[in-house]
Amino acid sequence: MSKKTKIPKATITRLSLYSRQLELLEFDGYRMVSSEKLAWLCQVNPAQVRKDLGYFGDFGIRGVGYDVRDLNQEIKKILAVNREWNMAIVGIGNLGSALIHYQNFATRGFHIVAAFDADSRKIGKVVGPNLIIQDMKTLKPSVMELGIQIGIIATPPSVAQSVADALLDAEVRAILNFSPVQLQVPDHCRVEHIDFTVKLDVFTYKLTHGELGM
Amino acid sequence: MSKKTKIPKATITRLSLYSRQLELLEFDGYRMVSSEKLAWLCQVNPAQVRKDLGYFGDFGIRGVGYDVRDLNQEIKKILAVNREWNMAIVGIGNLGSALIHYQNFATRGFHIVAAFDADSRKIGKVVGPNLIIQDMKTLKPSVMELGIQIGIIATPPSVAQSVADALLDAEVRAILNFSPVQLQVPDHCRVEHIDFTVKLDVFTYKLTHGELGM
Repeated sequence: MSKKTKIPKATITRLSLYSRQLELLEFDGYRMVSSEKLAWLCQVNPAQVRKDLGYFGDFGIRGVGYDVRDLNQEIKKILAVNREWNMAIVGIGNLGSALIHYQNFATRGFHIVAAFDADSRKIGKVVGPNLIIQDMKTLKPSVMELGIQIGIIATPPSVAQSVADALLDAEVRAILNFSPVQLQVPDHCRVEHIDFTVKLDVFTYKLTHGELGM
Repeated sequence: MSKKTKIPKATITRLSLYSRQLELLEFDGYRMVSSEKLAWLCQVNPAQVRKDLGYFGDFGIRGVGYDVRDLNQEIKKILAVNREWNMAIVGIGNLGSALIHYQNFATRGFHIVAAFDADSRKIGKVVGPNLIIQDMKTLKPSVMELGIQIGIIATPPSVAQSVADALLDAEVRAILNFSPVQLQVPDHCRVEHIDFTVKLDVFTYKLTHGELGM
């Protein structure tokens, strides 16, 4: 890849999906996969798969396809998920507690190593192995000491922006926002907003247009 | 739209994103928007926006753009989110409780009207306005009586498949799966899997490739 090539965000997101499907294929005992099959599993078209991978190199064998395990290793290297990442979470209500125990984070190398809340009744409570709820006031020193680069916001919407500001002040540059509010952040930071309802719109379309049902 | 045209799933998902951005634009007082601007806000290309909308009709005014409010109404009609939908949730742990109180569902017309758990200590507990945790055994009659078409699974992975089977048996055809497990369902049903980690891979790529930071 030329150093000047800026990879589209959509490509990165698809690489992440390819990696998950490759993992399932490997689990099911497949050694090779065609771009057609991988595309079909990920609900994209085969040319897209080839184009996305083409940004990074030439991974396939013409007429044979891709080595499932090797391709996944390459993708994980590209995505930098072949290492461990530390995260901080703010807002330890029901959702925050669920996220602390969410198995997929650890499976993919993401670890919540610091938890914060503004509610004094929660501070000091043990919420996971080696995880104690800390006062919001200690966010900056804790996050900086642990070198945390990813923050998770699971607070009520009314305080989400001030929490984002506190995370930015602690030099966190990537925020996963579960709060249903649009956050304002500077250009050198990135927010990904998790909205559970987007997928529901696919259902309502299909249920209404008769694409689901006996 | 011809009755024979099958709309790609990706188009439906993008319509959902367009609708959200149009709502924000309307909230900010915009009356018109160009396909270029809408595309930019949604991180897709303008030709894609025009193509997606083109499946359903001719909504824009050449050289002017789209009427923000009208376009959003049209999209909501297409997605069938201009009405109310009832949902059932199974598994009332931390995540299930958080989902019951998730504001965005109601905002978008989705209502959790039935809640189920297998834990006898939870059954009978009030978890929301007019919402009492019911025994899993009553799932089929309750869901059928309420005409629920969408189910949410927020159980531990080990029981997710059996819960999916119970929902299917109750004629639910659309399942939002929060459990980190791949569900097997027949073709006339649809599962959307929510995996919080996909968005994290975008962060790790950008953090590693120097696309985030001062």
